[in-house]
Order: sequence, then structure tokens, then C-alpha cells
Amino acid sequence: MSNQQMKAIGLLNYLPIEHPESLLDVMMDVPEPTGRDLLIRVKAISVNPVDVKVRAPKNRTENTPKILGWDVSGVVEHVGPESSLFKPGDEVYYAGSIARPGGNSELHLVDERIVGFKPATLDFAHAAALPLTTITAWEGLFDRLGVSAATDHNEGKTILIIGAAGGVGSISTQLAKHAGLTVIGTASRPESAEWAKNMGADHLINHYEAFLPQLKALGLEHVDYIFCLNSTEKHWINMAEAIAPQGKICSIVETDELLDLTLLKNKSVTFAWELMFTRPLFQTADMIEQHNLLNEVSRMIDEGRLRTTVAQILSPINAANLRKAHAILEEGRMTGKIVIENFE
Amino acid sequence: MSNQQMKAIGLLNYLPIEHPESLLDVMMDVPEPTGRDLLIRVKAISVNPVDVKVRAPKNRTENTPKILGWDVSGVVEHVGPESSLFKPGDEVYYAGSIARPGGNSELHLVDERIVGFKPATLDFAHAAALPLTTITAWEGLFDRLGVSAATDHNEGKTILIIGAAGGVGSISTQLAKHAGLTVIGTASRPESAEWAKNMGADHLINHYEAFLPQLKALGLEHVDYIFCLNSTEKHWINMAEAIAPQGKICSIVETDELLDLTLLKNKSVTFAWELMFTRPLFQTADMIEQHNLLNEVSRMIDEGRLRTTVAQILSPINAANLRKAHAILEEGRMTGKIVIENFE
Repeated sequence: MSNQQMKAIGLLNYLPIEHPESLLDVMMDVPEPTGRDLLIRVKAISVNPVDVKVRAPKNRTENTPKILGWDVSGVVEHVGPESSLFKPGDEVYYAGSIARPGGNSELHLVDERIVGFKPATLDFAHAAALPLTTITAWEGLFDRLGVSAATDHNEGKTILIIGAAGGVGSISTQLAKHAGLTVIGTASRPESAEWAKNMGADHLINHYEAFLPQLKALGLEHVDYIFCLNSTEKHWINMAEAIAPQGKICSIVETDELLDLTLLKNKSVTFAWELMFTRPLFQTADMIEQHNLLNEVSRMIDEGRLRTTVAQILSPINAANLRKAHAILEEGRMTGKIVIENFE
Repeated sequence: MSNQQMKAIGLLNYLPIEHPESLLDVMMDVPEPTGRDLLIRVKAISVNPVDVKVRAPKNRTENTPKILGWDVSGVVEHVGPESSLFKPGDEVYYAGSIARPGGNSELHLVDERIVGFKPATLDFAHAAALPLTTITAWEGLFDRLGVSAATDHNEGKTILIIGAAGGVGSISTQLAKHAGLTVIGTASRPESAEWAKNMGADHLINHYEAFLPQLKALGLEHVDYIFCLNSTEKHWINMAEAIAPQGKICSIVETDELLDLTLLKNKSVTFAWELMFTRPLFQTADMIEQHNLLNEVSRMIDEGRLRTTVAQILSPINAANLRKAHAILEEGRMTGKIVIENFE
């Protein structure tokens, strides 16, 4: 089987997205599953800021094509000898690991502990929009911010989601609402504000203006939680002002700037990073929590309690469409998710 | 009653501790309890780094004596009209609020929600050593780091306590051991290492050397929690290296330097500040948790599960002994706590 070939989209050089060789259609050997790996037949993928970041122009070259893509839905083709959670034919969705090749290929290896059963009520395209942002949102809210899963614990509690209309924002807003929190989203354009409202945001403020006066205009003196999905350093002082005593801030956006952490001290504030690749990257003992949470999200979707966040679907999965998707993400005004389905 | 006078120790000018006027014996009016305040007859006090920090030389003067002292044991003399937790004659201990005068006076006002019943098995001097450090340690471990109160949840989990022999370190080490964690303390001198061992530390490493190689020598690849009771900036890189993926760091020491927070991102690490004055300062809705935890600590002391951390007792409470205590703290090599008992 190892001599079988498959289509993939990869890169050898790190080029501006307008360059036709920034992402290339290539052929590669089909890999074989070992250990707890599954071999997945990829049906749809979605594109995230992490793809753009990894692909960004830099002075380096690859000898073999580097494959991006950390959002996949598909069908289990083969299972590794130590896998126990899935069987061939199962429909799945997952984000994968940044330490391994991405899923922009016809067949793809992934550790079963970070794979979930695809929502039955979603097609592959709508399912592919979910894993990376959902894992990020779930871990951010419940593991890092420590939001209680018991809805009645969250009564009267507030969360500010900075960038509520983006990929992670769209699903975070829904999950936070579902947990019983009052959600104040940020958006700067009428379209994105409208989108965030549709995802369930109770209030919207503008992230280009100071947060606290806008919160006060809503009758709030502070927020209990902040989930920052946008420039951490740009919002630092605003976050320090807006957070409640003993409040918690989580960010997913790293920063090149040094920060004045002491601004958070008098209020005994907690700051947490969320990176959805931490568990697979360090092979943590609780890695299987990603399997569990993706399954729980499938149930919520199938019961109509959550909805997918697709904004746009392209087809087929090839270099031209991936370049188009990267270009859209690079504009930085994305609401919801962009998905590409079907190899030709 | 408002014309009654009492002894107090205060300052008008912020002077080096060698200066005889850095702390002064003064007479002041006895205050009256209103609302939920208690009027306490002070029996013993202890001195903490916060006293040294507030007293440190600066270009400012006070018109009326500024009273320091945020660790008190004593007896309830009168209760305010809205108080319900205590009655005159009750023996209590508490840290108080940085936003109000401290307890270095014969009589002192404090909000009952941050006061606990004194351990019955301790005299006033040994009780006075506890409140500030114990509240800090308890909030740091259980509220900020989120260490589980259920001992069996902590099996196999490790905590690094930077500065294990100091005031907060001495009680943190005991509380962490009691919670079932393996405690790695830091100490740099044989005396302080011995002290920390007596408080229950399982292992000791030196905080002047890199943490990770010392942990590896103990067979550990990282620690699940870090409690930093010593220069946050000096230990920043060492902490980033030593903390486990998804681990949590709590510090009580503010820093003038900007920090590279992104060092913690790949591991999805949480950083939390602990300031024991946050609850009284912001009059948070859960302020009474300090009453509850002080009572719980009293029970633990009386049942022999925790012990006090007194290293030295002076008497009586006057400016000369307070200057002596400040001078000892300024040396920065304190193990345990220094207490002063009895007004003459």
C-alpha cells in the first residue's frame, strides 16, 4: 500500500499568497497507520489563521512538500493496530496536530485520541468548519477560564469576547451562551456585529474604543471573564480596566511585545493562554479530552443546541482554492469559517 | 467613648528604618464600630513584607499618623450594629484591609467578614503569625492555582514553591502537603532549607540555579503548579521552562519589568496573581470566604494538621520593637514569621 499515491496541496517555498507557487498541487505516497493512528479519507477541510501563519513568507525552503490544514472531516479508511475508538467507515472530524503534516491531502494520519464522531446532521463541509475553533473555544472557556459546565453557576456572570464574529468567536459565543453567561461581543463593522448577534451575543461593543465606558453604558461595571481572540497587546490596558476583581482573561493570540503583567495584580486577575495544539504537541495524559469534547459538540449540534459557523464553501480541494481561501483570511475581516470540500 | 485614647505606632515621614522617627509611639482616639465592623482589643501583631513596602522611604508626609500592621490577634471589644458573626469576648485573628489603618494600635476596626475565630490551641502570639500568610497561601493554592480540595485529585501532582521558608512559603508548604501534592521548595541557605523541610517540603532546590536540571535530578520532567513568593521577573524564564503543559503559575510579587508572556503560550500555561487584599479592597461579593478559610485553618491547627510558623516573638508592641522587626525583614532572609505581643 505504501506505493499508492494521493493528491495533496503543499509548499516548498514560503511565498506571498498571490504567487502561484505559494501553494502547489502535488502527489505523495499514502501513509500507513501505526499505533493509535487512523488513516482518514479527507472529504472537506477548513482554513484557519494558523495556516496563514505557517505559510507566511519566510526565508526557508522545504525539500519535500509541507502540507498544511488543521481542520478535517472525512471517513476512517484504516485503523492502526493499537486504536480502539473507531472502525473503518466511521465519519469523523478533527483538528490534528501542528507537529505533524496537516490534512490538505486525500488521505491523512491522525491520532484517534484527538478525533471525534462527525455530527450526523451535518454534511462534511459544515462539519469541517468546526474542530479547530471548537476545541479552542471549549478549552478556552472550560479548561482555561474555568467557566463552570453547570449552567446555574454562571447566572449573572458576564464574558467579553474580543473578536466575536471570527472563527473561534462564532463558536465561543454560542458555547458561552449555552453555559448561561451573558455575552458581550466585540465587532467593528455592521456585518460582523450582525453575525455575532446571530451567534447569540447579548451585546456588542467596538474593539477600537475603550471597553470600560462602553460596558458602563450597558450598565456593567466590569466583566467576569475575557476571551481575547485578537491582538493581545492592543487590548491589554482595556482588558486590565474591564476585568472584575478575581476575574480571568484567556487569550489565543501570542504577542511580540513585552507586557505589563502587574496591571492585573491589585485585582488578583488570572491570565491564561489557550493553544489547541498543546495537548497533541506534548502528548499530555489527558489528550483524549479532545475526543470527548468533539463528541459532546456533535451531540449538541445534532440536538440543535449549537450550529456550525460556515460563511463560505469552495470546491474542489486544490491549490487554487486554497490560495483563494488564504487570501481571504489574510484580509483579516473574516466572519465565520471558510471551507473547501471534495478532491476531484 | 470617642474621646478615649489609645496607644498606637505610626509614621508621619517615610524614613530609613534606622531613623528613630521611622516609626513613632503615638496616642490616638479610639474609633467606634459601625456597620459590620468589629472593634478589636489587639493582643499580638506580626510584621510582613507589606509593612516594609508601605513604610519604605519616599518623598511624602502624613498629617496624622499612618498606622501599619496587617496581622492581628485579639479579643472582640464591641460589635457594629450590622455585625452578626461575633460577640464581645470572642478571640479572633485576621489580616484586615490595606485600604484602612493597620492593626498596630491597642484597639482596631475590622470588617467581620474577613475575621476568623482564633485557633483555641494557640496563644495570641502564635495566632498573630498566621492570618496574612495563610489567606495568601490558601487563596493562591485553592482559588488562583485551582488546586483541588479533594486530596485524591492531587495524587502524583507536583508544586514548586519558590521561597518555601518565608512567611507565605512556610504555610503554603504545609497546606500543599495537606492537599496531597508533592512539594518541591526552593531555599538557598542550609537554615532555610532545614526550616522548609520541617514545614513538610519533600524536596528542596536552590533558586539561584536553573530549575529544570534540578527537577530532572529529582526524576521530574516538570511541575504541575508553581507558587512564586519571590522576584517574579528573576524566575520568569526558569518558571516557563519548569512548568508542565497546561500547568499553572501563581505569583504574589509584583514586578517593575515588562515580561515576555508568550513564553508560556505553547504549553497553554495559566498565570495568576494573588493579592490577599483584593477581596476587602474591592468589597467583593465573596469577601466572607476569608472568614470561612480562617475558621477552617483554626480547625486544622486545633486538630494538629497544621502548625504555626512563628520564628521569633518580641514584646511589647511599641515603636522600638517594630523598628527592630522591620529591620530584620529588610534583610530579606527571614524564615517563618516575626511576631510582637502585648501593649504595656
